[in-house]
Amino acid sequence: MAETQADAGNTLVAGPPQAGAPQAEDLLGLSPERARAVHEALDAGLVPHVLALVRPLHYAEVADLLEQLDSDRRRKLVDALRPHFTPEILPELDETVRDEVAEQLGIEALARSIARLESDDALTLISTLSEAKQRQVLQAIPAALRGLLEEGLKFPEESAGRLMRRDFVAVPTFWTVGEVIDYMREADDLPQDFTDLFAVDPRHRLVGKVPLDRLLRTKRPVPIAKLMVPDIVSVPVGMDQEEVAFIFAQQDLLSAPVVDAENRLIGVITIDDIVDVIRDEATEDLMRLGGVAGDDLYEATLDTTRARFTWLFVNLATAVLASLVIGMFEAAIQQIVVLAVLMPIVASMGGNAGTQTLTVVVRGLAMKEVTPANAFRVMTKEVLVGGFNGILFAVVMGGIAWGWSGQLSVGLVMGAAMVANLVAAGFAGTAIPIGLSRIGVDPAIASSVFLTTVTDVIGFLAFLGLATWLLL
Amino acid sequence: MAETQADAGNTLVAGPPQAGAPQAEDLLGLSPERARAVHEALDAGLVPHVLALVRPLHYAEVADLLEQLDSDRRRKLVDALRPHFTPEILPELDETVRDEVAEQLGIEALARSIARLESDDALTLISTLSEAKQRQVLQAIPAALRGLLEEGLKFPEESAGRLMRRDFVAVPTFWTVGEVIDYMREADDLPQDFTDLFAVDPRHRLVGKVPLDRLLRTKRPVPIAKLMVPDIVSVPVGMDQEEVAFIFAQQDLLSAPVVDAENRLIGVITIDDIVDVIRDEATEDLMRLGGVAGDDLYEATLDTTRARFTWLFVNLATAVLASLVIGMFEAAIQQIVVLAVLMPIVASMGGNAGTQTLTVVVRGLAMKEVTPANAFRVMTKEVLVGGFNGILFAVVMGGIAWGWSGQLSVGLVMGAAMVANLVAAGFAGTAIPIGLSRIGVDPAIASSVFLTTVTDVIGFLAFLGLATWLLL
Repeated sequence: MAETQADAGNTLVAGPPQAGAPQAEDLLGLSPERARAVHEALDAGLVPHVLALVRPLHYAEVADLLEQLDSDRRRKLVDALRPHFTPEILPELDETVRDEVAEQLGIEALARSIARLESDDALTLISTLSEAKQRQVLQAIPAALRGLLEEGLKFPEESAGRLMRRDFVAVPTFWTVGEVIDYMREADDLPQDFTDLFAVDPRHRLVGKVPLDRLLRTKRPVPIAKLMVPDIVSVPVGMDQEEVAFIFAQQDLLSAPVVDAENRLIGVITIDDIVDVIRDEATEDLMRLGGVAGDDLYEATLDTTRARFTWLFVNLATAVLASLVIGMFEAAIQQIVVLAVLMPIVASMGGNAGTQTLTVVVRGLAMKEVTPANAFRVMTKEVLVGGFNGILFAVVMGGIAWGWSGQLSVGLVMGAAMVANLVAAGFAGTAIPIGLSRIGVDPAIASSVFLTTVTDVIGFLAFLGLATWLLL
Repeated sequence: MAETQADAGNTLVAGPPQAGAPQAEDLLGLSPERARAVHEALDAGLVPHVLALVRPLHYAEVADLLEQLDSDRRRKLVDALRPHFTPEILPELDETVRDEVAEQLGIEALARSIARLESDDALTLISTLSEAKQRQVLQAIPAALRGLLEEGLKFPEESAGRLMRRDFVAVPTFWTVGEVIDYMREADDLPQDFTDLFAVDPRHRLVGKVPLDRLLRTKRPVPIAKLMVPDIVSVPVGMDQEEVAFIFAQQDLLSAPVVDAENRLIGVITIDDIVDVIRDEATEDLMRLGGVAGDDLYEATLDTTRARFTWLFVNLATAVLASLVIGMFEAAIQQIVVLAVLMPIVASMGGNAGTQTLTVVVRGLAMKEVTPANAFRVMTKEVLVGGFNGILFAVVMGGIAWGWSGQLSVGLVMGAAMVANLVAAGFAGTAIPIGLSRIGVDPAIASSVFLTTVTDVIGFLAFLGLATWLLL
């Protein structure tokens, strides 16, 4: 009976499975209905009701809920949760929201929460605080943990040293399976969850790893040296987190040991933190391509306005440059006004074709699929694709322009400009991101401005220039 | 001595660690130098040299190498590898490249490779083959595995059923820790790597899980029922892979049991497959926002041309619509030609501001951070940001337009149009993706065309319309 109840609670299925693929919204604890109920309970000040609604949620769901609330309700919810605040909520929060919640909790409660987290989560959390607050929180934390955290903060941001856990199980190679199992049954300072043991030599240098399933399959007298996987990847403590994530994804790792310059084992990075890195890096690339910086969704309106202004201002310069090009041909436009009507089409098609190329190349660079070995081949292909589509759209749009203006020559000018701009788009869409990445600039962040400049200038110049030359 | 050698081989560090954060390119086996050496050896037909260069690589690196080669060299490399072809290479390949390699390997070798893979990888691989080839390969596979694969192929694409492994360890709740360990030491059909055991009732219904570290910490007489984590998340077999990935990332899972409609345990999904899903889904969103479909980088030039044509054609319709709007104001342009010079600026700023909003909202929807609970708040904020930046750029660009044209009124028209278009961009950039996602269309795939239509039409209409009304 108890088992059946547990079942019902454990499974995500709510309705009959025939009703198509289930959606997580319907299944997870944080349904829109529950969110709305929490809103209402918060507005009515019914703290016990709020707690009853929130209690069944996973801490990550409570974090999602906090993110979705407006600032006012968020304060109320944090106050309601305060007596039993689950520390694991904090690392799951978006940074802007987390700052707000941390501020409200106060130094004491924050230090208590950090002390109860796993060492990697504690470090992530403390590293996002302002320096003054970091110092205050560190003061309020037990000395042993404080030392670890201070050490962790010395590693560069976004490095392996910031991601790793400091608690891991390392055993000498001469121990037997039986000794290891007995040790694990007795030890009371083991990490919370782990999937591998590491084998070290007497100077604590890494020599291999023992996945737990391998340990469990092996008889007690076998020594670790016989059992361990010797040929393992280790991560230098200074490696950038994006590189670490690449290796995890490439080699399907669950965890990787982190070593110092002397190959001594100093920490372990686990896949759950890497999943966050992969999501964050993907978000970052997408945002940068869209001209948005960082933590946009939860920022205050004025902060967002300011952050976006910069990007738009750079784009304004591009647009003004394009206008200067148009300005050179005022005389032509005055005589043949249909040129003004048709010219945005050439620029727009170039911009869109270039964006297609740019997207493929920027992602290819991020995934290390575009490399020096195939860069030239990718560029050749993109220029050819631009040329072929240029010819196709030259026919389509040349025909439309001919019909629209009643002049064959306008159609021919349109067609020629279209080919020129789509070829330029293919070339610039590859050359700009590859060039930026060669000189060490993230191609996602700056490529699209340069690209638009090229496709606008070439588009207007080719169309209006050819028109001036041929039609006047 | 042997240990020291092993160390040198295991660690990724090549140079001194002081030289800044190491880059994976320098560290991993597949360096540009090695890639170039492979090229040369392939061109010279030196098969033993090729093999010597490729042997130290991880199978995922061999896959990367195959992807980077042109078709001709790829054929040569596959031929060189054929006698000892590592089956794990195949699931790591991009789909277009994989089809080519599979074709070259032939049915027999392909079937042998698939039979040696883990069940989830085997299923992924076979599901990407054409139906005719699927049938041929299945014929050549041992009957037991064939049955599993045929069953797997019946699950919908991109569902949990396609991702799960069929080999897992399930134990009855009345077994003790000692019995489980003894069983694992004797059994010879255990899966290759696993991190959790699952507890099932006599009807094979899921009742809990036992992480291996928990098992190892517990004394032999303790029964599984006392030890297991009863409160676990399980995944219905029909759930979409994107939902599964969301749950994994949210709850930091390493593996999740998959159950059928009767809550019977039928498979396990592991985090390594989820990492691939997360990367693929992020790539897909990015590509769709950029107007690119699927597997673009490795496709042949003509296939890419055709795939991109469709998207550009839709955009052409948008551009033509914008031109029709301009065409309504030919008379105004003929009289005040500077309008033609300035009008693209309004449209371009609207397009860029709208793209910023769109990017944030599309990503927010994908990450379930934009929900019905906060959609209205997000929209209000975006309209306000549009309004504030509209006012700022009205001042900047209004001033420029005034100076350029020498007419204050042109500056005023520019300013008013800028505010109108940036507010429209904020509204459309939120409303379009949220609306599309409500009606079940992926907002990444169609939003940007609709957005450009809005910002172009409103941009030209506001600027030229106001100009006609106020200046003529």
